[in-house]
Amino acid sequence: MSDNVHRTDVCIVGAGPVGLFAVFECGMLRMRCQVVDALDVVGGQCAALYPEKPIYDIPGYPRIDAAALIDRLDEQARPFEPVYHLGQQVTAVRQGDHGRWSVETSKGTRIDCAAVLVAAGCGAFGPNRPPLDDIESFEATGAVRYLVTRRQELRGRRVVIAGGGDSAVDWALSLADIAASVQLIHRRDKFRAAPESVARLRQLAADGRLELVVPYQLSGLLGREGHLEAVVAESLDGVARRLDADVLLAFYGLAMDLGPIEKWGLALERNHVVVDPATCETSTRGVFAIGDIAHYPGKLKLILSGFSEAAMAAHAMFGVVFPGEALHFEYSTMAGVPVAG
Amino acid sequence: MSDNVHRTDVCIVGAGPVGLFAVFECGMLRMRCQVVDALDVVGGQCAALYPEKPIYDIPGYPRIDAAALIDRLDEQARPFEPVYHLGQQVTAVRQGDHGRWSVETSKGTRIDCAAVLVAAGCGAFGPNRPPLDDIESFEATGAVRYLVTRRQELRGRRVVIAGGGDSAVDWALSLADIAASVQLIHRRDKFRAAPESVARLRQLAADGRLELVVPYQLSGLLGREGHLEAVVAESLDGVARRLDADVLLAFYGLAMDLGPIEKWGLALERNHVVVDPATCETSTRGVFAIGDIAHYPGKLKLILSGFSEAAMAAHAMFGVVFPGEALHFEYSTMAGVPVAG
Repeated sequence: MSDNVHRTDVCIVGAGPVGLFAVFECGMLRMRCQVVDALDVVGGQCAALYPEKPIYDIPGYPRIDAAALIDRLDEQARPFEPVYHLGQQVTAVRQGDHGRWSVETSKGTRIDCAAVLVAAGCGAFGPNRPPLDDIESFEATGAVRYLVTRRQELRGRRVVIAGGGDSAVDWALSLADIAASVQLIHRRDKFRAAPESVARLRQLAADGRLELVVPYQLSGLLGREGHLEAVVAESLDGVARRLDADVLLAFYGLAMDLGPIEKWGLALERNHVVVDPATCETSTRGVFAIGDIAHYPGKLKLILSGFSEAAMAAHAMFGVVFPGEALHFEYSTMAGVPVAG
Repeated sequence: MSDNVHRTDVCIVGAGPVGLFAVFECGMLRMRCQVVDALDVVGGQCAALYPEKPIYDIPGYPRIDAAALIDRLDEQARPFEPVYHLGQQVTAVRQGDHGRWSVETSKGTRIDCAAVLVAAGCGAFGPNRPPLDDIESFEATGAVRYLVTRRQELRGRRVVIAGGGDSAVDWALSLADIAASVQLIHRRDKFRAAPESVARLRQLAADGRLELVVPYQLSGLLGREGHLEAVVAESLDGVARRLDADVLLAFYGLAMDLGPIEKWGLALERNHVVVDPATCETSTRGVFAIGDIAHYPGKLKLILSGFSEAAMAAHAMFGVVFPGEALHFEYSTMAGVPVAG
């Protein structure tokens, strides 16, 4: 095999929290894993979108920041020596010889495996982009952004925020302290965010420290060569307003973009992969799916549900990876885990 | 209502790890909980049987002792102010007015609730007791034991251990250092324990620091008024051996004793409560079951599976507790949790 061809038991697509925990669960059953992710780091959305956000519903953690959770899951997976292929998307999944699978990536990596486990969250997710002319050129310069990685970069800037959810409200509150100006555009005068946050937002607006531009929606961007001069907002009856701005932060949620997974021939239901809840197997034998991308009756999109699905899928994949071998199930309290090499 | 009658949304039967996490999941959906447990403390088996044992398969905890896990789950549940009724068993569950339920306990507590959530693990679990004459009197004095709570109590004592699993082997290893003598009776010469532990066991036996009495089984106890003098073991062909002893530790696993739950009229399958995997509802509307006691296709008896079931059951119970009300689902990262009062 060439350098770029790898042989393993399970190829996991997605290195978010659920994919990482699947490495652990597979490892406990002696299955080796290789993991592909489009991002350059492990952690999925937790790492890329909200590393500093506290999560309250991980069992046994009254509160843990997303980045810390990823660190712990990474540590828990490590003794099983997973191989990560990061910064590359899966481009093709083909059935190979003897029922094995071949997973190919955008960097030319090929992974030969007995089972494929899709733990791809919302797919190669991306923000919902407002349909504005020439938005790409403003994205390229950072004048239009969908997330804030360094708050200090917005100090002294004129910021327009679009959206009515949690992120829009939280960033409006946070940036009111340091930005030159903050204007929040939303298509109605109600916000989907924690009541206390909304109350603070209205207080800051009353104090003149930010402006609520409601009910308005985004209608255009003014500027040239990626340098933003103003954002145009339009009221519901078509009256336009020009909002001078250096930066537009658009928080319209994440697009669920399955990307190439859509073309694998798996049974889908409203953009999710349908699985058998007893095994997490998809409509294709040998291909399993867990976490937010998987759907079955009663499915909850919670990280903790994905953890449980990882355990179920690992047990089911054991029969695919080691056909005919009985699974001698041991509790972790008995056997412990291997020590990292 | 009298002092001993309580009204709540959900009555949880069982305060083990899964029951505790159910308090949290219900609380996140605004449902108040009261919790009944036969033990005097929260934590179930984790607290009563193996508090010092490390667990390796809790997601995000590469290793956590059972007691520490319970502490964290207790803390996570606390903001929702659960009411615990400990040291009492549920004796009856009756359907009351307007579809509500009445749960009664051995201490005369009555809990009036909209839904019942059974998270009772193996039921009011107990050890498998060997069928030996007069064993009760030896149990009463502590001459026959099924678990060791304080190792130092066995210093200088002549100890016979019966069983071939993890607990029997681990305690034989541990007590060889401090007991006057250790003899391990097992019906065959193979042990179901970690290979390294079995290897150490055989080495200690070779060194004369403990004796393996195999293949033998327990056949009697000698002594009077609860004071043990010797344990009688019998080989498979009926030859008896007298093993002088102060204490017998019998490790034959846990009996799955559903106790009164068996009489609630729930559909059972081999001593487990059958649930709909999409909701964790039992065959009786308004009664749900999660954790080790619950069964559905593909069920794994893992604590982490019980956590996920707690979330599913909470979402399903919402419709029972607040009929007709839409569940506005929020991620914990948005709303946070209430602060303990």
